[in-house]
Amino acid sequence: MNIVEIIEKKKNKQELTRNEIHFFVKGVTSGEIEDYQTSALLMAICINGMNEKETFDLTMAMRDSGEVLDLSSIGRTIVDKHSTGGVGDKTTLIVGPIMASLDIPVAKMSGRGLGITGGTIDKLESIPGFSSEVSDEQFIEQVHTVGMVDAAQNKNLAPADKKLYALRDVTGTVDSIPLIASSIMSKKLASGADSIVLDVKCGSGAFMRNTEDAEKLASAMIDIAKKANKKCEAVISDMDQPLGYAVGNQLEVEEAVRFLSGVFKEKRLESLVIGLCKTMYKLSDKYYGQKDEEIERFIRETLDSGNAFNKFKQFVAAQGGDVDFIDELYNAMGDNMGYKGKSYTITTEDVVKNPDDVYGPLRINRIDAGLIGKSSLALGAGRMRKEDAIDPGAGLVFNRFVGDELNPGDEIVTLYSLDDEKLKAGRELCIKAIELG
Amino acid sequence: MNIVEIIEKKKNKQELTRNEIHFFVKGVTSGEIEDYQTSALLMAICINGMNEKETFDLTMAMRDSGEVLDLSSIGRTIVDKHSTGGVGDKTTLIVGPIMASLDIPVAKMSGRGLGITGGTIDKLESIPGFSSEVSDEQFIEQVHTVGMVDAAQNKNLAPADKKLYALRDVTGTVDSIPLIASSIMSKKLASGADSIVLDVKCGSGAFMRNTEDAEKLASAMIDIAKKANKKCEAVISDMDQPLGYAVGNQLEVEEAVRFLSGVFKEKRLESLVIGLCKTMYKLSDKYYGQKDEEIERFIRETLDSGNAFNKFKQFVAAQGGDVDFIDELYNAMGDNMGYKGKSYTITTEDVVKNPDDVYGPLRINRIDAGLIGKSSLALGAGRMRKEDAIDPGAGLVFNRFVGDELNPGDEIVTLYSLDDEKLKAGRELCIKAIELG
Repeated sequence: MNIVEIIEKKKNKQELTRNEIHFFVKGVTSGEIEDYQTSALLMAICINGMNEKETFDLTMAMRDSGEVLDLSSIGRTIVDKHSTGGVGDKTTLIVGPIMASLDIPVAKMSGRGLGITGGTIDKLESIPGFSSEVSDEQFIEQVHTVGMVDAAQNKNLAPADKKLYALRDVTGTVDSIPLIASSIMSKKLASGADSIVLDVKCGSGAFMRNTEDAEKLASAMIDIAKKANKKCEAVISDMDQPLGYAVGNQLEVEEAVRFLSGVFKEKRLESLVIGLCKTMYKLSDKYYGQKDEEIERFIRETLDSGNAFNKFKQFVAAQGGDVDFIDELYNAMGDNMGYKGKSYTITTEDVVKNPDDVYGPLRINRIDAGLIGKSSLALGAGRMRKEDAIDPGAGLVFNRFVGDELNPGDEIVTLYSLDDEKLKAGRELCIKAIELG
Repeated sequence: MNIVEIIEKKKNKQELTRNEIHFFVKGVTSGEIEDYQTSALLMAICINGMNEKETFDLTMAMRDSGEVLDLSSIGRTIVDKHSTGGVGDKTTLIVGPIMASLDIPVAKMSGRGLGITGGTIDKLESIPGFSSEVSDEQFIEQVHTVGMVDAAQNKNLAPADKKLYALRDVTGTVDSIPLIASSIMSKKLASGADSIVLDVKCGSGAFMRNTEDAEKLASAMIDIAKKANKKCEAVISDMDQPLGYAVGNQLEVEEAVRFLSGVFKEKRLESLVIGLCKTMYKLSDKYYGQKDEEIERFIRETLDSGNAFNKFKQFVAAQGGDVDFIDELYNAMGDNMGYKGKSYTITTEDVVKNPDDVYGPLRINRIDAGLIGKSSLALGAGRMRKEDAIDPGAGLVFNRFVGDELNPGDEIVTLYSLDDEKLKAGRELCIKAIELG
């Protein structure tokens, strides 16, 4: 077998065999296949596609390129939730405690943010003392004692995917459904969950820009899971505007705390959280045919009773986080407590360029999630490259949402950053993101 | 401008602008664009193609990546002939002296062979004393005094093409008409000829396997030449079987000598030589509307009178070659004069596997040029890699051709090589190449 022949097959729209795909992935992992050959094949896959069988073979080859975790010692069905990545997506911080408080174990490994996509680990680490470095023993132990653990993904899971992903980023070969589906699923299958709920984001702040593509990606991933004998469901959710009111690490923890404690639940976030929880519940070992309404009642009850919020604090404490800080956040209520940086509040006047042209009431038609993600990155809340440091307190807090009417002087969004330059860059991007009608 | 955006445009089947193509070629030449990015774009071009404008822009950008020769000081129209490469193609050795003896200047730079394709410089250097290292002054001087010069291409012509070609070879991106056309034409346009005759080879021993593709390649190259204000004609010629009776360096010089001196002209080679000479004549400054028959008469007369053969000897002498050797070759007549290696003659019996199955007369249905090229390579007449040394005397001499009837004991082809192992490998490939009916 030789890589040039494999490249030529895909160039000529032929199906690759399981052996050819494993040969390719092995060569990528070992470094025997040169990057310029890999990128040629990636481009051929991008343009000519892969069928379901090839996509599955690629996923399994990447899964098997590194460690494959075994969580069976927990003795319970492990349901994982995976988001394809978005702006302001703090659902894991909310869904995890809800599930755990309903006695559905959460044993999760999460990533750090890159580009406009935030990472759950960065959010959690903005809590003073919180550690995402968890030993294998503590990981299993914490599932038993607390019912929830979230550790930084520092195992050698799917190293082939890491290499391919880095190369795709610089060779214009990101937007391929077989490549995205196999990349996500190889990591999910390596991380040991029994059932997977996929939150496929769709819109300007996501890989998939339209519903059709999001549905294709969802069905490609479900097909892989089915072939790998895993239960899997997908939810397609809107990422054309940011999720919830906060974007940024500590700001999103604050929103999660306010949600869990019942102080404030932004509507779109609430509807997504309930939907994801219901889907996860039905894949868990607590499910024996209960009706949708009954499951939704369990979820709302565990939130209203404070059980989910307590579970969150118990989880934070178990990983060394400062629970007093969580309580302070709860009391502080949405003012980016104790932030040492600068802030700027964008008002109606910042967004309306020519006030003379405005007749009648103004409405927010759109808040572009892609641009808000870039704004958040500019403010210091994200990373351009893996090595970059982030500012845990930087970000945006929205007071107005799509569909809201605007009056003169209304405060739309407040931006936080450590320095004036970043604040200015973030502000410009944010103003661009807000479209009035 | 950024290379990832350019790659994505071509991936999405969009036309690249002149600026984008020049940005790409500049980056390839300087090394600023990474090989893995280049190969991704090459694959996208391979699959999604390039229109005539893009192909022209790519050609000019590659031409301008290095030196562009100026032969205007010769004061004559320079007509170049270019073969897309084949097996047993010694036409330059014959066409050159014919043209020069008709007072049409030949100012040529030729390459060395690689893979199954022979190189004119290797053939000429198999003449004792012959040097292809020619100074710029001698180059021009020799055109004036002899009318013919052929130097090794050692200028920095189209370096971007060199880099792209090396990468295409190892990334499965060779067989793209825009890439092949721009590669050939960038070098031709850099080498200073006023008019170009293209000999587009077609068949198992060539890049283009069928007439349709050969015609597409020819018309792509003619279009480039037209846009670059050069006169250009293309001849499509058969390379499904080797050209002439000899394959190998000194063996092909011998065939050229026998052709020029009138001893033996293999029919297919003769018809191609006359066709190319007529086309070149009509692009030269000697042409003022003469009829085809008249031009053909000039060509046949210069051959029959010995003028073309004398011109060849004059040219060989001017570049230090041993003219006595040429005369000896002429007298030796087809027995690989003075070769120190081994030989093996393939007869009817070697090719007929089951003599009992044969009823009635045998005929040669096919001699596969691709396999003969591989056989010649195995015998030591070619190079697998640029650094390889070649055996000037190795090769094949055919006594029988496609269409000939075979009787028991008939000698079909004699193979020459320096050692037994190579002889055996070459023999096996050669036997595979011969198909009987």
